[in-house]
Amino acid sequence: MFFQITHEDKSCQARTGVIHTDHGDIETPIFMPVGTQATVKSLDSADIENLGAQIILANTYHLHLRPGEDLISDFGGLHKFMNWDKPILTDSGGFQVFSLGKRKSPLLVGEGQGEVSSEHSKLVNVDEDGVTFTSHLDGSTHRFTPESAIEIQHKLGADIIMAFDECTPDQASQSYTRQAMERTHRWAERCLEYHKNIKALKHKNRQFLFGIVQGANHEELRKESARAISAMDFDGIAIGGESVGFNMEATKNILDWVNPIIPKDKPHYTMGVGFAPSDLFEVVERGVDMFDCVAPTRMARNGSLFTHKGRININNSEFKTDKSPIDPQCTCPTCKNYTRAYLNHLFKSEELLAYRLATIHNVYFFLNLMSEIRQAIKEDRFLEIKKEWV
Amino acid sequence: MFFQITHEDKSCQARTGVIHTDHGDIETPIFMPVGTQATVKSLDSADIENLGAQIILANTYHLHLRPGEDLISDFGGLHKFMNWDKPILTDSGGFQVFSLGKRKSPLLVGEGQGEVSSEHSKLVNVDEDGVTFTSHLDGSTHRFTPESAIEIQHKLGADIIMAFDECTPDQASQSYTRQAMERTHRWAERCLEYHKNIKALKHKNRQFLFGIVQGANHEELRKESARAISAMDFDGIAIGGESVGFNMEATKNILDWVNPIIPKDKPHYTMGVGFAPSDLFEVVERGVDMFDCVAPTRMARNGSLFTHKGRININNSEFKTDKSPIDPQCTCPTCKNYTRAYLNHLFKSEELLAYRLATIHNVYFFLNLMSEIRQAIKEDRFLEIKKEWV
Repeated sequence: MFFQITHEDKSCQARTGVIHTDHGDIETPIFMPVGTQATVKSLDSADIENLGAQIILANTYHLHLRPGEDLISDFGGLHKFMNWDKPILTDSGGFQVFSLGKRKSPLLVGEGQGEVSSEHSKLVNVDEDGVTFTSHLDGSTHRFTPESAIEIQHKLGADIIMAFDECTPDQASQSYTRQAMERTHRWAERCLEYHKNIKALKHKNRQFLFGIVQGANHEELRKESARAISAMDFDGIAIGGESVGFNMEATKNILDWVNPIIPKDKPHYTMGVGFAPSDLFEVVERGVDMFDCVAPTRMARNGSLFTHKGRININNSEFKTDKSPIDPQCTCPTCKNYTRAYLNHLFKSEELLAYRLATIHNVYFFLNLMSEIRQAIKEDRFLEIKKEWV
Repeated sequence: MFFQITHEDKSCQARTGVIHTDHGDIETPIFMPVGTQATVKSLDSADIENLGAQIILANTYHLHLRPGEDLISDFGGLHKFMNWDKPILTDSGGFQVFSLGKRKSPLLVGEGQGEVSSEHSKLVNVDEDGVTFTSHLDGSTHRFTPESAIEIQHKLGADIIMAFDECTPDQASQSYTRQAMERTHRWAERCLEYHKNIKALKHKNRQFLFGIVQGANHEELRKESARAISAMDFDGIAIGGESVGFNMEATKNILDWVNPIIPKDKPHYTMGVGFAPSDLFEVVERGVDMFDCVAPTRMARNGSLFTHKGRININNSEFKTDKSPIDPQCTCPTCKNYTRAYLNHLFKSEELLAYRLATIHNVYFFLNLMSEIRQAIKEDRFLEIKKEWV
């Protein structure tokens, strides 16, 4: 069995569960650190394991462009290539094709989920069969179809892979959003079909395929999409879209619309959630089992660090002489060994170590909070712990 | 006893020894990684310890400018500030004042030793009492005297501290070089005097003071400097200068001139040596016990990596599909866990992890080679192992 629910909180939809993969079990609900280019920025695989990460994300769009899925496959897949033998999830590249494909400058490139996309670009051409897009790295032309996105993900060999979807901007007209959503549903069928018909796995581990619910911020479309994706034989159901994660009011509405429709016995995954600790509570309360976001790692590299008393910017001069750790309640390696003053010095001096120590803290902070949330659910006191944080 | 010689190789001047400090013993001959701004770039203190470093360098000039010696002293000294409880050596700042003081752009700043300085700048003003210089960070004016350089180093609290000297460019006239050298000798006396007369240590650990032999590439001046510095009550003798380390032919000549003069029972330290493995052999053969260089760490960040078969540039396309470690004979954490192809991918993608994994390798490579050299000396086969490397 791929997914087991182990406990349901008595007072809301929050639940704990276990996802079984060939690279180990994942306790849910889980925050997944993002390792877009086969590395969680600044951390090595031993760091990630020491922080207690149970699964990390990687990105099909980025890895297709560099170093290429054939090279990674030749190394035995992404796990071996990056020396990480726990579960990996690859996003299909749909979000990036539509949000990053048009950007020419590498300086503007983000890490995947959580980006705010603007209007569709002329550099991205969608047709019924797939999408032709321009690499943000070198302007070269590439094409993804549902089949090729699955093929690439088979070569990468992640434990959980995603259907290829079109992520429409919230500003798009309702008629365009419907058109894109219906195409996404047809693509979802093709992804499933191609995934099932591949005779042999490229690598040893099984790969579980998730479908993605779209429909932007339109209640009618979201519900229709939830029904369509739920009716297909996916191993898990994701909720995608430009607003998801980035706009929590919209995210909560979307979850309230689709939750009654999505089958309870499959993992629910909100793509791009985790800009703040309170966001985790909002989605877990609504029965979500998995989420990822680049914000904790990206914020870390800007010196924006989470604490039990809110976020601090370690660059601020008030921390120059501060002998306390980032968060006195935190037990991460950074907080155990270094002061705010030392981190302030490293950031001011633009020392490489700054980014790693800060990333270690923010990732640990989110993973540790998730561990506390799971424990609270098991003890039917999720809403209590939520009150302390939201 | 501060320094004990434990073995002298029968066939040359190479020797093993132990330096005793309040933060532990240092086996010599030793390569000291450079941690200019209270961090060995990209590594945390656990990394440095895991690589087997017995002592690291930090820099008085850089730490005076940022975050300031008073702040570090208030934290209990550099060891506590950077969370490193093994020995530290601080350079006096003389080299940096004369080579970096004139540079306005932070982009041009190096890590300390090993830089090639050019002619003296108008932004650096030397007089009999000390030096007035301009910060490379913000253009502010600062002044070092022998007394203030020792005072700052007392506040930083390193186990080994250096006398304040003037490092003259090789192109300077012989008469200017003599003038600067004689002033450096007078400064050396003042450093010793000030160091001895400070009633109480700022921090708990003892601090051992080294003098620095100058004289550029003039045999007569070098010998005179060696006699003058050796006659003073220093705990160790350093050989400084623009050419030392950077120009190995000049370095060998200088060592051959001064070695018969410098007392054998004090540690000999060549400042800035370690651009290549062969350099280590040349100075160890001439009785040198300690050396430091930014090259292994700086080269690492450029993708230039040491192997038993010479240096490779990991950015080269030939490594894109290479499944072997950086150096198959190396047992560092990077070589045990990652391939050349993965490193090539990280460098091409400008991922932060690239710099740390590469630095780990180069530092380990040098430290491990020094361990092999010490073993060879103990077995009177230093010249044999030298033949394999030079």
